[in-house]
Amino acid sequence: MREDHDLAYMLQYENVAWFEDGKVRILDRRIYPAKKEFVVCSRHEEVAQAITDMVTQSAGPYTAAPMGMALAAYECRDKGIAAQMDYLKKAAHTISTARPTTTKRMSLLCDSCLKAAETALEAGKDAAEAIVQHTVEMNDERYKRIGVIAGYLVDKFPDGGTVMTHCFAETIVGMMLRECRERGKNIRLFCPETRPYFQGARLTATVCHDMGFDVTVITDNMCAYVMKNEHVDVFTTAADAICCDGHVVNKVGTYQNAINARYHGIPYYCTGAPDPGHPTIDTVTIEMRDPEFTLQAMGVRTADQGVKGYYPAFDITPPELVTGIVTDHGIYAPEALKNYFMDGDSPEFKVVV
Amino acid sequence: MREDHDLAYMLQYENVAWFEDGKVRILDRRIYPAKKEFVVCSRHEEVAQAITDMVTQSAGPYTAAPMGMALAAYECRDKGIAAQMDYLKKAAHTISTARPTTTKRMSLLCDSCLKAAETALEAGKDAAEAIVQHTVEMNDERYKRIGVIAGYLVDKFPDGGTVMTHCFAETIVGMMLRECRERGKNIRLFCPETRPYFQGARLTATVCHDMGFDVTVITDNMCAYVMKNEHVDVFTTAADAICCDGHVVNKVGTYQNAINARYHGIPYYCTGAPDPGHPTIDTVTIEMRDPEFTLQAMGVRTADQGVKGYYPAFDITPPELVTGIVTDHGIYAPEALKNYFMDGDSPEFKVVV
Repeated sequence: MREDHDLAYMLQYENVAWFEDGKVRILDRRIYPAKKEFVVCSRHEEVAQAITDMVTQSAGPYTAAPMGMALAAYECRDKGIAAQMDYLKKAAHTISTARPTTTKRMSLLCDSCLKAAETALEAGKDAAEAIVQHTVEMNDERYKRIGVIAGYLVDKFPDGGTVMTHCFAETIVGMMLRECRERGKNIRLFCPETRPYFQGARLTATVCHDMGFDVTVITDNMCAYVMKNEHVDVFTTAADAICCDGHVVNKVGTYQNAINARYHGIPYYCTGAPDPGHPTIDTVTIEMRDPEFTLQAMGVRTADQGVKGYYPAFDITPPELVTGIVTDHGIYAPEALKNYFMDGDSPEFKVVV
Repeated sequence: MREDHDLAYMLQYENVAWFEDGKVRILDRRIYPAKKEFVVCSRHEEVAQAITDMVTQSAGPYTAAPMGMALAAYECRDKGIAAQMDYLKKAAHTISTARPTTTKRMSLLCDSCLKAAETALEAGKDAAEAIVQHTVEMNDERYKRIGVIAGYLVDKFPDGGTVMTHCFAETIVGMMLRECRERGKNIRLFCPETRPYFQGARLTATVCHDMGFDVTVITDNMCAYVMKNEHVDVFTTAADAICCDGHVVNKVGTYQNAINARYHGIPYYCTGAPDPGHPTIDTVTIEMRDPEFTLQAMGVRTADQGVKGYYPAFDITPPELVTGIVTDHGIYAPEALKNYFMDGDSPEFKVVV
């Protein structure tokens, strides 16, 4: 689909999820890269369930969800236009509520698919095909924005510098590394493994290594040690939600790494854009997942019977721990983030950090 | 061997390591509690290797090492006294250098076994038997001191309070819980799993549950989340070395949990005693273990080939992050710790916190 075969793209664009012949195939990130297998969904409810079950995560659902909408359009293709739209609205609700922390962002995404479907149906065209085409355009637009963000982020990396990540920041990982390569800027990376799903060890480290960078996986309890002893220049993550008041919601562990970064005088840059659905942190729901999952690792039980588990999927980093939000309009101090919506190009509205 | 069958005692006293019939049997903590198996050593070098390989850890080596010395005495029992002492001195070196971070403490321990052996041999008695008897006395003395420490520590727990641990603090875990029980003080515990060996999930949580307390295992990246959202009252650990200048050397992750505790205004109490072998942090060597071990979990590979690992076994928490060192003489502010050796009972020499 693209000439660029970087794994970051493969994960995001080609293999994450695609609708074809009445089925959506989703790369199963729970077992990648040890095994490359796909979960095949024949109903849009199965796509929603796959998102709930973390078959795909990070930015993966932003492709999987529209593909689920395309599948829903395929399912109801023989109904009348009004009935199809009714069916699609219900599907949009099912898919966008698959995980509580990202429901607002997913709703906006599914709403845009509804509009694409409506326009197509009114013009006598195939709704599923229109949603697929709309997704390609949305992703291209998103990649363009992420490319701009990567440029601002890489400005903050010293040549020969050391960068610490957390979890898997999806497309921005590949984009920032490509940007480094194009500028001839060499960096090395430390990736905390990110329990309990090991996204850091399995996904981020794989992308970094695949793109030819020096990458080291550490356990999640080594972050402060590495910050102190390995001269980390920048700590950076993406986010599952960035509130307009500067709070960052991301994979659990981001918060304590931001605390550790602050203690060591290391800047923390979060990439993305403020979410208009979250004017403040008060609208965010932190998803609590099955606590039993923290009592095993890679499928092997760790704790004894009777011991309890606990599994908040995300945590909240307050604005005072965030050095800058790296957006496609530039880097904002978190307290100036609401200006993102006013005028991205007017320097009086943003505080570049 | 004792009436008290708490698992904390079983791990420490009965099952950790014992010399009998020319063999030392060591409980294999790498697989406990899923499997209860023993590594059987027929030579003292195998005991040293078992310590290096972390068959036993935390305070386990403080029983395993003397048992290795008893085994060495058994090995050379047919030699003359001078030759036996020469053999035992070499064995003391082999055993006490099994892990670099605890070498000084282990040397003192093995030296005391040498003295016990010498006294026995000069009186025409069996050296191995004398070392075993000496170990029983040392452990009894140690347990007595840990009992006193547990009393001071439990003073700091509010009734109905929440305590966070790190790694496996061995005997003090059982002692503090017994002290809580005797006082009718109820606490609940959060145990970070402690990658890469999962001592928190496998050992600490098992002891807590076995003793009837409410215990929850979390992954190592959830500590700050739990501190913020679950009202943690006290963070506490033991230490592999406490320097006289107040630096704490303990399982990697202690440092970042101390940073997180400080950020949330939670006191950090470290239990133990200052090590006269370490007047300052400058004499401490942090053990770097096989980096490949961080690329797997419970024996299952996590990262892709080509990705690097990194494995510092311990980290250093500076005195400014330690609220108090809980010793058998009372609780010292870390900067007052050297007074421990002057007069434990004189209030003018210590700063009780």
